[in-house]
Amino acid sequence: MLSLDQYRYDGSEKVKLEKAPTSARALGLNREQVVEQTQQNKLEIASLQDRLYAEGQEGVVVIFQAMDAAGKDSAIKHVMSAVNPQGIMVHSFKQPTSQDLSHDFLWRAVQCLPARGSMAIFNRSYYEDVLIVRVRDLHKNYKMAPRCLEDPEFFEKRYRQIRHFESYLYENSYRTVKFFLHVSAKKQKQRFLERIERKEKNWKFSSSDIKERALWYDYQDAYEKAINATATKNNPWYVLPADNKWYTRYLISEAIKQVLEQTDPHYPVVTAAKEEELERCRQQLVSNVNNL
Amino acid sequence: MLSLDQYRYDGSEKVKLEKAPTSARALGLNREQVVEQTQQNKLEIASLQDRLYAEGQEGVVVIFQAMDAAGKDSAIKHVMSAVNPQGIMVHSFKQPTSQDLSHDFLWRAVQCLPARGSMAIFNRSYYEDVLIVRVRDLHKNYKMAPRCLEDPEFFEKRYRQIRHFESYLYENSYRTVKFFLHVSAKKQKQRFLERIERKEKNWKFSSSDIKERALWYDYQDAYEKAINATATKNNPWYVLPADNKWYTRYLISEAIKQVLEQTDPHYPVVTAAKEEELERCRQQLVSNVNNL
Repeated sequence: MLSLDQYRYDGSEKVKLEKAPTSARALGLNREQVVEQTQQNKLEIASLQDRLYAEGQEGVVVIFQAMDAAGKDSAIKHVMSAVNPQGIMVHSFKQPTSQDLSHDFLWRAVQCLPARGSMAIFNRSYYEDVLIVRVRDLHKNYKMAPRCLEDPEFFEKRYRQIRHFESYLYENSYRTVKFFLHVSAKKQKQRFLERIERKEKNWKFSSSDIKERALWYDYQDAYEKAINATATKNNPWYVLPADNKWYTRYLISEAIKQVLEQTDPHYPVVTAAKEEELERCRQQLVSNVNNL
Repeated sequence: MLSLDQYRYDGSEKVKLEKAPTSARALGLNREQVVEQTQQNKLEIASLQDRLYAEGQEGVVVIFQAMDAAGKDSAIKHVMSAVNPQGIMVHSFKQPTSQDLSHDFLWRAVQCLPARGSMAIFNRSYYEDVLIVRVRDLHKNYKMAPRCLEDPEFFEKRYRQIRHFESYLYENSYRTVKFFLHVSAKKQKQRFLERIERKEKNWKFSSSDIKERALWYDYQDAYEKAINATATKNNPWYVLPADNKWYTRYLISEAIKQVLEQTDPHYPVVTAAKEEELERCRQQLVSNVNNL
């Protein structure tokens, strides 16, 4: 039985990452059927997105967060590949530039917000500002007024600011879907080794990945806090098991399909006046008025 | 006796625009002294801004809102002209583009936020989205989901969103100063006539100004609501009498000076290591090591 709901956190319950599943093994799923269902979902997503774009009424932001090698990049590639690139943009949030750092932390994300009718995929996001920044105390070197930096509630305030920001987006005709791809330390190790051992995967590996892995429990803790502080009814988090990519991708496709369905997109209605205009244009073309 | 405080609204008291002064006449001020004090303030602003820029720790956003011909443009020109343009940018918020309208209403303002250490002047701002939009019901033609457009609390929510946005800025090392230049209908008429009668002022007048003037009381009402809903301790409004430009400019200069003083800007401290480095460089220059 396939169910996305068990992985959704909307603030009514707290997630304990240690207990949240990373594997699909215990579910006794038929992998082929799941892959087939993912394929179905991809086609539906493409069709829904076409209407979303035509209507231009709601914008959709899809956020991917995860430990390294949890499968963010490949999930984006596989699940979103059927969609018309005209209506979708992927933004990767790497190390902030000095210009980013001289602004408020949401600033660079706002630049990447899609126009209504479009979708944006955030490969990492402003959540990094309560994850790596928290784990590595990066904010201590920021140039900010003492009232900000010396505030013992610095990260609590950021959580609130993110909640406000996302609820502002919702009230302004946007929807966000937030994924945490929950991979096990064991599976990460296995995927890192693959990246080291297979020549064509070497480019995906950096020695700094090992340094971040050393902080595994700090990151799990920062993720848990961030997710619990920002999971709301309108902007829920999905904590998805990420050890089996075929299952993760299915769940992602299901969640994206659901959020697009919620926007209930329709092609703009053709009014009687518009119909008449179309007919007039048809006749002009047929009668060759422009001699072309 | 010169006092800015009487014009500051920080949420503890409501403004009644009908009763708020538009003129300096009753104050019995010495105009020459006021102009002299403005000049002093301008020099202090320039000096404070130099340190603000060197330190790069706080950003300052100055918002000007007013009815037409209240003196926004000329106040910006006069008060800010002593400041090094390297650290300041003026953004005029005219009619939104179709790209602006396809995003959330704060989107175009966020693009204009200054880097920390810099100042931005907003000549009009996102407040237009609760002023002209409210008076003229412009939002009814926006492409937004029904949950947004049909919300009877549409503008109440925008006020809250603005409060959250500005308090977010404050918590992220920004300060905002908000001016409403309060001009009387009589003075506006006089200035409009001048713009029509004097050739070199014609470019400042548009027949649409008369159409907006016809909605005078609707605008006063929208301003009053917006100011009262968004005046807070950290992000106060100044409702300044605007019939006498020399007085308005003094008050603006005083408020800007005060907010810059609050940022308490300092040139970065020269450490012992930095001093040594400077001395090393001095010697290299003097001994002409590069043969230049």
